[in-house]
Amino acid sequence: MPSASAREAALATTPAASLVFTTVLSHGPLTRAEIARRTRLSAAAVTKAVRPLMELGYVIEDPDQGTRSALGRPAIPVRVDGGKAFFVGVKVTGDEIIAVLADLCCRIRVVRHLALADRQPGAVLASIAELVLELLTEAEGFGAPVRGLGIAVSGDVDREDGVVRYSPFLQWRDVRLAEIIGAATGLPVTVDNDVRALTVAEQWFGAGVGLSSFALVTVGAGIGCGLVVHDRVVSGAHGVTGEIGHVSIDPLGPRCYCGNNGCVEAIAADPAILRGVREATGKPVATAAEALELARSGDRGAREVYARAGQAIGRAIGSVVNLFGPQRVIISGEGLAAYDLFAEGIRDAFAASAFGSAAQSDVMTRPLPFEEWARGAAATAIQSFIGSDTYEE
Amino acid sequence: MPSASAREAALATTPAASLVFTTVLSHGPLTRAEIARRTRLSAAAVTKAVRPLMELGYVIEDPDQGTRSALGRPAIPVRVDGGKAFFVGVKVTGDEIIAVLADLCCRIRVVRHLALADRQPGAVLASIAELVLELLTEAEGFGAPVRGLGIAVSGDVDREDGVVRYSPFLQWRDVRLAEIIGAATGLPVTVDNDVRALTVAEQWFGAGVGLSSFALVTVGAGIGCGLVVHDRVVSGAHGVTGEIGHVSIDPLGPRCYCGNNGCVEAIAADPAILRGVREATGKPVATAAEALELARSGDRGAREVYARAGQAIGRAIGSVVNLFGPQRVIISGEGLAAYDLFAEGIRDAFAASAFGSAAQSDVMTRPLPFEEWARGAAATAIQSFIGSDTYEE
Ligand SMILES: [Zn+2]
Ligand SMILES: [Zn+2]
Repeated sequence: MPSASAREAALATTPAASLVFTTVLSHGPLTRAEIARRTRLSAAAVTKAVRPLMELGYVIEDPDQGTRSALGRPAIPVRVDGGKAFFVGVKVTGDEIIAVLADLCCRIRVVRHLALADRQPGAVLASIAELVLELLTEAEGFGAPVRGLGIAVSGDVDREDGVVRYSPFLQWRDVRLAEIIGAATGLPVTVDNDVRALTVAEQWFGAGVGLSSFALVTVGAGIGCGLVVHDRVVSGAHGVTGEIGHVSIDPLGPRCYCGNNGCVEAIAADPAILRGVREATGKPVATAAEALELARSGDRGAREVYARAGQAIGRAIGSVVNLFGPQRVIISGEGLAAYDLFAEGIRDAFAASAFGSAAQSDVMTRPLPFEEWARGAAATAIQSFIGSDTYEE
Repeated sequence: MPSASAREAALATTPAASLVFTTVLSHGPLTRAEIARRTRLSAAAVTKAVRPLMELGYVIEDPDQGTRSALGRPAIPVRVDGGKAFFVGVKVTGDEIIAVLADLCCRIRVVRHLALADRQPGAVLASIAELVLELLTEAEGFGAPVRGLGIAVSGDVDREDGVVRYSPFLQWRDVRLAEIIGAATGLPVTVDNDVRALTVAEQWFGAGVGLSSFALVTVGAGIGCGLVVHDRVVSGAHGVTGEIGHVSIDPLGPRCYCGNNGCVEAIAADPAILRGVREATGKPVATAAEALELARSGDRGAREVYARAGQAIGRAIGSVVNLFGPQRVIISGEGLAAYDLFAEGIRDAFAASAFGSAAQSDVMTRPLPFEEWARGAAATAIQSFIGSDTYEE
């Protein structure tokens, strides 16, 4: 659920109307009959749900796409009118803020980046507010109102209360992000975990379109996982979900900051790889790019560190697949830059650990730059706006 | 989805009607207003869904439970009329067949056990047919028709096709169970994985009632897991799901029959414990009961085997919780008999591996005898009958 302010600003939609809206958003233009088939709603329920969306102008008929049915009745498809409302999406990494202005179709219209000199909440929140106000000015040029702001942060995020409970990368605890940024910008604010936000964008527009279940595994500074089950993003009863980075695969593995041993993140995330490459080569590599260069140059020790990381990721994906049998596993994140070094390890370990027909899960890679994560944040703001988040538990 | 025959025999219900039926089954008697609130359907949709169920007599008004609303209008609750139809549920273990005759409320009316001398499909299928025909005779005494048969088997089961693809305990491969038993008994047959079937019973009548997400972990001859996410049992895109027994927690752990190393099942299932106790004590223990007795008598080596098993189970539950964040984890299975020996290991390993607020998941134990598993099989037959399985992907 959204923060209180985002919820108050939401359209007074029914669950059926939200479902119809997101279906048209992902698959439109669609005729009402096609919407009924996809949503399993009755024709009457679809007509009833479409009407207020059309009255508000968020959904329009698209006669150019119309076809004539066998009975001669025109079936005019409807689509979302992207220009009718705008949303801002913000992704906070450890190094920078990426903000996008997106329309109601969640198409990116403007992108802004701002480097972070300081990870303290005060400094970061001031930078977020600054970027958002810049984008609000940009939005004026489009002549449509900005209806919401989504902010995506890694870690344990309480979407309902709009609070970042714990973000290890930022070293934040209990930051009331929605309240503070809402006051600074005047916008309804939705705060969510960054991987969950990216998962919404993949479900609506990416490699998850049309799938009722998939897993999105992100590899990089951290290792995360978004899950869609029964057509909906899993949010977790206590806010924690998709913590594939803290699935322990080896009781004798390296100590993780979470207190456990052998977590995937302690073996395969950027800091673990850097440390491993330093130890294996004795060279003072300082960045992921340097470690990568060393491995690509053929350094055997460095290559083994990547291979072990790939195996850890593959074993963890095997666990995800054995437990919930998704239709597809999408591997993404900035760590894809090193995918050539991971690939064999992931493939072999996945094949060894997937049980029976679970091995049939379609495992694919897909590069998603940080703009796409910010777009995911905008998608969470659209969710709050159209009330589709009330589908979450 | 059910086997073809079970689907043909299903009521011509809408998804809304199935949802209304299962809601009344779990929570009834309920007024139509209470049904609308729980299902998030409109009052009109509830009325429309209840009508045919009442016409068929499956749902009846219960005026004794009626209350008068503040406006003076009577709100007469409805409930399922259990005696209106019967179902047979069968659970096949490695040693015996347990069959129950259950009514439409899934209350057990008759129980039958039959020891298995032979695990060959031919012999087992003949025994199943024999037991079912016995229960059909019993059902005549109740004066209501038997509308379906559910069979629960461990392993990789294709519910849609009614085929047991691979059952390690029975050493079955590609057994067309629904087709054969359907021909022998004349009943629509639903075949499902036994842990998934038990999960349906827990969701409708057990410790999962009212929860939108929970995990049911079963410990014993094998180690399994049923998952409910977004109010529905997860079935897995390729039939495999909840294979917590084949989540590998230690790359240097013992070899599992699935080909992987360090699977939970290779450490904590009955055969692994027996082997471990033999190795640790040098004594020729032959059964789980003997191993248990030795550990209870204070044998240090035997106790350590159980402690390690408990730790493996606790670590695997930690992975489930980190990935899905269920509201509750229910531990059950015949292995609960040794729970005093597992408990500390489970608790400690779960606490160490649960990430952040995931540790708040409510982990509880609950004894569920095999009759309850057979009841779960009957519940899958009721699902097929009322068409609620069409909610599954
Ligand atoms: Zn960890
Ligand atoms: Zn295994």
